[in-house]
Amino acid sequence: MLITSFELDKVMPAFIIANGAASFGMEVTLFFTLWGINALKEKSIYSGKNIKEKMITMMLPSHPKTTTISRLNMMGIGTGMMKSMMQENNIETLPDLMDLSIEMGSKLIACQMTMGMMGITTDEIRDGVEYGGVALYIEEASESGVTLTF
Amino acid sequence: MLITSFELDKVMPAFIIANGAASFGMEVTLFFTLWGINALKEKSIYSGKNIKEKMITMMLPSHPKTTTISRLNMMGIGTGMMKSMMQENNIETLPDLMDLSIEMGSKLIACQMTMGMMGITTDEIRDGVEYGGVALYIEEASESGVTLTF
Amino acid sequence: MLITSFELDKVMPAFIIANGAASFGMEVTLFFTLWGINALKEKSIYSGKNIKEKMITMMLPSHPKTTTISRLNMMGIGTGMMKSMMQENNIETLPDLMDLSIEMGSKLIACQMTMGMMGITTDEIRDGVEYGGVALYIEEASESGVTLTF
Repeated sequence: MLITSFELDKVMPAFIIANGAASFGMEVTLFFTLWGINALKEKSIYSGKNIKEKMITMMLPSHPKTTTISRLNMMGIGTGMMKSMMQENNIETLPDLMDLSIEMGSKLIACQMTMGMMGITTDEIRDGVEYGGVALYIEEASESGVTLTF
Repeated sequence: MLITSFELDKVMPAFIIANGAASFGMEVTLFFTLWGINALKEKSIYSGKNIKEKMITMMLPSHPKTTTISRLNMMGIGTGMMKSMMQENNIETLPDLMDLSIEMGSKLIACQMTMGMMGITTDEIRDGVEYGGVALYIEEASESGVTLTF
Repeated sequence: MLITSFELDKVMPAFIIANGAASFGMEVTLFFTLWGINALKEKSIYSGKNIKEKMITMMLPSHPKTTTISRLNMMGIGTGMMKSMMQENNIETLPDLMDLSIEMGSKLIACQMTMGMMGITTDEIRDGVEYGGVALYIEEASESGVTLTF
């Protein structure tokens, strides 16, 4: 799976499918690039970054639990409503789905080129994530029976 | 095919490719989840829903023919222009493409988890649609030679 | 690869993966449809178009170098910042990635139905691009080991 978005309604389906597939014994690799990297963040660090890197850090979510939806967000009202509807229906939260994914042995890979470009450091990324470039993605994709983009 | 969007310019390419593939004798399955569910709606029902479910029903299209485009919509002007350009070029409308898809034997599956979460009932969904969960999607995807996301 | 978007942050990952795959000796086909067609434009031509076609020409980018990002564009500030961050990290520009892709022998196909619908002529499209319909896409996809949508 290639994840280029960070929004709740893009990353959640990816992890729901990933965890479903893993539970059927399939090997799952998720490669996070561009905006997708932000889904892997655990915190935002500003020190040591240049002004552009600081600005981009400020404007993007610092943790999957602060991620909004891509439609009907309405200054956060829509996202809050969606999250409460998920909770009422016993759907796991995105951070829980991500923890479960790592526990089940799925490979989460952060794109090194994006990290370099946006000035994101490994200290900002959650534990259990691997690092790699486009070559690794292509290798994994070419060995996969199912390739999905989110 | 996994459809997570409801916009005209996401759902139409999905059905154009689906119908093309079906006409070549390929077996086609379209799984609609999250916002994608709205493409399968025939009408909106409000009675029996809680306030959050009513709000989400109100804000989302009640029929594929009222669906807008994701870019250049401009309060509906862009969508109207796009639809008239399609008509002038004899491109079938989305509802026609969907009817044709079901006639050709393609499988349209609505995600049960999304329906539960958004409070969408089977009475709101068009005829000819099947219902299933993520396990069914993964099974179908793992048997498919081509997997696409829209 | 199926490209239905024209934004920098959709088309760039497509070409980075395409060129990576081509460098590993994989055969790559990119099919551009709907908004994706705009990524292939070299210039905008207005003469001979009807009013709707002129309007759509005016509102869409006339060259990949004028393409914006889909998030944080902020009237062009975000796009400019992103481009300068790419340059500082020695990431090739989108036009360069596209030239390289054609040089490496990847097939770029423009969707004829979209061109007819939007009134885009072959004079507006860069050299080295082929033209085809959905049947050609389906044929290419069914022969591919990896199918991606952007």
